[in-house]
Amino acid sequence: MVISMRPDATEAQIEAVIRKLQELNLDSHRSTGVNRTVIGAIGDISQIDTRDFEILEGVDEVVRISAPYKLASRQFKSNNTVIKIGEVEIGGREVVVIAGPCSIEDSEQIDKIARLVAASGARILRGGAFKPRTSPYSFQGLGENGLKIMREAADKYNLAICSEIMDASQIGLMLNYVDILQVGARNMQNYTLLRSLSKLNKPVLLKRGLSATIEELLMSAEYILAGGNQEVILCERGIRTFETYTRNTMDICAIPVVQKLSHLPIIADPSHGTGIRDKVLPMARAAIAAGADGLIVEVHHDPNKAVSDGAQSLYPEQFDKLMKELEIIARAIGRTLGI
Amino acid sequence: MVISMRPDATEAQIEAVIRKLQELNLDSHRSTGVNRTVIGAIGDISQIDTRDFEILEGVDEVVRISAPYKLASRQFKSNNTVIKIGEVEIGGREVVVIAGPCSIEDSEQIDKIARLVAASGARILRGGAFKPRTSPYSFQGLGENGLKIMREAADKYNLAICSEIMDASQIGLMLNYVDILQVGARNMQNYTLLRSLSKLNKPVLLKRGLSATIEELLMSAEYILAGGNQEVILCERGIRTFETYTRNTMDICAIPVVQKLSHLPIIADPSHGTGIRDKVLPMARAAIAAGADGLIVEVHHDPNKAVSDGAQSLYPEQFDKLMKELEIIARAIGRTLGI
Amino acid sequence: MVISMRPDATEAQIEAVIRKLQELNLDSHRSTGVNRTVIGAIGDISQIDTRDFEILEGVDEVVRISAPYKLASRQFKSNNTVIKIGEVEIGGREVVVIAGPCSIEDSEQIDKIARLVAASGARILRGGAFKPRTSPYSFQGLGENGLKIMREAADKYNLAICSEIMDASQIGLMLNYVDILQVGARNMQNYTLLRSLSKLNKPVLLKRGLSATIEELLMSAEYILAGGNQEVILCERGIRTFETYTRNTMDICAIPVVQKLSHLPIIADPSHGTGIRDKVLPMARAAIAAGADGLIVEVHHDPNKAVSDGAQSLYPEQFDKLMKELEIIARAIGRTLGI
Amino acid sequence: MVISMRPDATEAQIEAVIRKLQELNLDSHRSTGVNRTVIGAIGDISQIDTRDFEILEGVDEVVRISAPYKLASRQFKSNNTVIKIGEVEIGGREVVVIAGPCSIEDSEQIDKIARLVAASGARILRGGAFKPRTSPYSFQGLGENGLKIMREAADKYNLAICSEIMDASQIGLMLNYVDILQVGARNMQNYTLLRSLSKLNKPVLLKRGLSATIEELLMSAEYILAGGNQEVILCERGIRTFETYTRNTMDICAIPVVQKLSHLPIIADPSHGTGIRDKVLPMARAAIAAGADGLIVEVHHDPNKAVSDGAQSLYPEQFDKLMKELEIIARAIGRTLGI
Repeated sequence: MVISMRPDATEAQIEAVIRKLQELNLDSHRSTGVNRTVIGAIGDISQIDTRDFEILEGVDEVVRISAPYKLASRQFKSNNTVIKIGEVEIGGREVVVIAGPCSIEDSEQIDKIARLVAASGARILRGGAFKPRTSPYSFQGLGENGLKIMREAADKYNLAICSEIMDASQIGLMLNYVDILQVGARNMQNYTLLRSLSKLNKPVLLKRGLSATIEELLMSAEYILAGGNQEVILCERGIRTFETYTRNTMDICAIPVVQKLSHLPIIADPSHGTGIRDKVLPMARAAIAAGADGLIVEVHHDPNKAVSDGAQSLYPEQFDKLMKELEIIARAIGRTLGI
Repeated sequence: MVISMRPDATEAQIEAVIRKLQELNLDSHRSTGVNRTVIGAIGDISQIDTRDFEILEGVDEVVRISAPYKLASRQFKSNNTVIKIGEVEIGGREVVVIAGPCSIEDSEQIDKIARLVAASGARILRGGAFKPRTSPYSFQGLGENGLKIMREAADKYNLAICSEIMDASQIGLMLNYVDILQVGARNMQNYTLLRSLSKLNKPVLLKRGLSATIEELLMSAEYILAGGNQEVILCERGIRTFETYTRNTMDICAIPVVQKLSHLPIIADPSHGTGIRDKVLPMARAAIAAGADGLIVEVHHDPNKAVSDGAQSLYPEQFDKLMKELEIIARAIGRTLGI
Repeated sequence: MVISMRPDATEAQIEAVIRKLQELNLDSHRSTGVNRTVIGAIGDISQIDTRDFEILEGVDEVVRISAPYKLASRQFKSNNTVIKIGEVEIGGREVVVIAGPCSIEDSEQIDKIARLVAASGARILRGGAFKPRTSPYSFQGLGENGLKIMREAADKYNLAICSEIMDASQIGLMLNYVDILQVGARNMQNYTLLRSLSKLNKPVLLKRGLSATIEELLMSAEYILAGGNQEVILCERGIRTFETYTRNTMDICAIPVVQKLSHLPIIADPSHGTGIRDKVLPMARAAIAAGADGLIVEVHHDPNKAVSDGAQSLYPEQFDKLMKELEIIARAIGRTLGI
Repeated sequence: MVISMRPDATEAQIEAVIRKLQELNLDSHRSTGVNRTVIGAIGDISQIDTRDFEILEGVDEVVRISAPYKLASRQFKSNNTVIKIGEVEIGGREVVVIAGPCSIEDSEQIDKIARLVAASGARILRGGAFKPRTSPYSFQGLGENGLKIMREAADKYNLAICSEIMDASQIGLMLNYVDILQVGARNMQNYTLLRSLSKLNKPVLLKRGLSATIEELLMSAEYILAGGNQEVILCERGIRTFETYTRNTMDICAIPVVQKLSHLPIIADPSHGTGIRDKVLPMARAAIAAGADGLIVEVHHDPNKAVSDGAQSLYPEQFDKLMKELEIIARAIGRTLGI
């Protein structure tokens, strides 16, 4: 942390800052320039609120010059974290695709979709049993029965399972069926849930909040890592901007930024990131071209009849064609898709 | 819902849209203009995803022309909802001020602050016992013991209590001590929590999420109303923009907008809305001048020693002076502050 | 500027940074902490692109710890700048109100409105002769004839004139009629225009761009000040956010922030800041309660017939009532409205 | 335009709306539903301000159901516009790359860079002679002499030239040297400039403003088209969001959205879109994978010595490697890069 004093700061004001650093058990390093004095704070500032210095008399600006997260940083762990789910590895050379319907609807539906996405090269099946809906009047999911029939379908086609958890009280139930616990964008800062997940030994797919910065995404990952669970997969799914044509604006650049700052794998969700089918294809390609470690994509055998998110679900033929394009793009940057 | 067809849409495409409306039990009203055909859908569209029509062939645009919330709307209930907490009424002619520390720290602290804010005219005491912190390494609150000592202080100075609930599992505990259950910005779309609160007969203070639209805030209120709890107080506390000088950008205009769209009371939180003490004062005045039904403000008897949010906490003398200014402003627009 | 090295930076990397500072004629101050080395740069960094250091090997973060503007800063000039236009002073104790139609339409219209706003206490008349319209097919203004008839009306009712300039080529013409040259939000970073205005001895009203930060607004003011024109009035008129109910989101807090950072006066434009008449009133009150030095408001004697912006123009009776409320609010914070 | 009345609207209020439509020479179509009346307006509404209806008594919502631009829309012209600059075609099957330095510095510099980018497959040379700088104290460009030496270099290596125009007064000068006139993001709504360019017979590269919506970008293109100049190339260069790690957030999805709404070609600028060299590479790949018609990229033979934007300029070797990756990606989606 660096504290820059105003040019007209008095000696007493400078000393007050240094004294406050001492009270907080931080060493200080005073540097007197032509125009102003700058004070560096040395020590563990993870508990410090920089505003406590901003409001002191004579202080011009306070800058935190180290990231507030540790375990999630690449400085803490320089090698990529690779997460194994059965035979699948997320974060390695192979790009991994998670695909399936928005909601699990019935056993015939999930079986059909599982078969189709597996045939095209997906390795993990997605599908919601508990749905976070903006309206209290919308379909809220099949619950445990949905998880059961998804597990049967996944096993039949040798797929792992990724499904969303909405509350810490669902953990016991979810663990019976699911390989990756997904935390939705609206729960990215549900700290009660994050802390509960941090005690597990199970991969967590953590989606970026609608207006979360990359630093905040990594801070939420830190919650899970700090509790002992090292298996966190990050996910870019679009942020909110003033542009209204698309539901969200996918921040594709978050992919290489996260890969520079952190060792954790990052995938992209072009279905929620765009909200409309014909934009899912170009954005899926863009994410892989930018270096994403994988994708999570909504696919439905009959999108017009889907109970939710039909408009952003791909037809199986579109998904199959997309996978072939993605493999060429992955190879262009030294990766594979494994289809 | 109105569906505007492209100028070159074929008769078959128009009929396909009308057929889909029929399948969904909606009547249609076809209007043939010079350039294009427009189809109106008549009936209950609260379950409809407009994108399901956007992706049909020949469709140019689909517009939902009624709000997705009902119980929260002023069309459903034209008179202001007034919420009574003991002798205090929120949503009436009197502007109500909630004040207190960010975190409850110990009995001496909460007693001292309760005495001071009561003397200046606050009617409700705020203070956190469970703290949602961005960092897993920060102070997380005193828990039940904090609630106990806050109750004692509040009773001593004839104040009601408002405190934040972070998870549905805390409801039983909170009900023993608290008069208003506060839902924080990060939990505005925690639907499990909202649904649990909807079953209670207790006022809920619902804060707007960091990037939530006003419509989404009203949809979250709808969750609580739909379950049977009619006592919802809304709160504007700043949204996220690209401006970085302040922590958040207070959308003061949300106050009159909410008052036009809904019958629910709305208050403002200038402490979190700005994040820095000397901006709390002008923004508190601005909120009252814009017509807010109340304020929630952080006050601490010794902000430099506060365990959290000291930088945005007012000194008691500042709060006292502010209350006097607010009373003049309230009277200028036909309201009172009751001090 | 402070350059924080990575914990694993080598001695050679540290020396390369110091060498680059030397090449740029900057002194350096090396500070070796437990975890990392931090290098302070001392000297004039106004020409430096911090990214040139961010990309050096071993560098973790680079922070500019002084504002990029000088002449606009309160550190350069601690007293408020007060701008005199005839008998009116902007930036002093009195709050000044600029009012009038969006567009000048004809002599009868401008005369009628000038008379009404003067009677209610406005001191300056607004009205556009050159209109920046989003659509090439919309009304583009009366041009010089509009300025002529506005001048007549203003003189008759003892008002000064504020009108928008769209291009440097209009300066000669505008100077014949106008007392304050207004730069619209879309031209805030039209540097050719700003540089031309900097050579004049005439007040400039500089509106904040739709997505400009406060720092960028002050940098645009710096362009005008640096050329020699010291008479700059800043204006908050709403920024773009994801909220779509209102045209823009007024950043009321920009008012006290600018007053802390700069000596220049700042006024607010609630008409463009909200875009709809019934929101202009509460936001005008909020701006004055937050400490604005003035307002610019659209008023029309017959808004339903206005050629532009009728929906956000106040009726004369509304304006008159507003002025009375504003005077009470101004007095509550130690200012006057002069009506 | 569709006007939805409130459920409690009176017959008199409905008739007032219809009367106002008549005054504006619009036909109306009244549709009476169970809950409310909806009125459709038929005719040319390009001059209508929808807010003029929103403020009428009894009106609930007004929705414009046709785009405000015409000439720029795909409904007006269904085939892609292909712009020819010598042998190069922008908007055809071939992806076109524009490359070169941020600023023209001297003849040796521009000759060296022109040679290198041509060798890697670029078809058009970029370079600024007039620079829009945020600070009045920064380098402002070489002016005409810069254009002269760029023309010599371009001719030597068979490249066309793209360079930024900042003001209408520069048109005569620019036309002597430049093949594509670039309008920067800050000038996207400089209507005086757009109107001047609309009279030319010269390609214009129009960059999206920092907070412009896609619709506004197309409205600015409409200004140029409406004046008679049909050669407009659009450019996505990043928008402003709350994310601060990158200078801007590239809205890659704007590429397929523009291609659906308009017949005009769209390219991407990953240099300004990210602001930092190592992010330019993945975002260039992402843009091509999403279907962009071309790129504009900053390349410098010695970025550490560049007078501006060195930090976001690619090394020639990086650019060469990028072009090879881009060719593979272009082929994966049925296009070519022509290297």
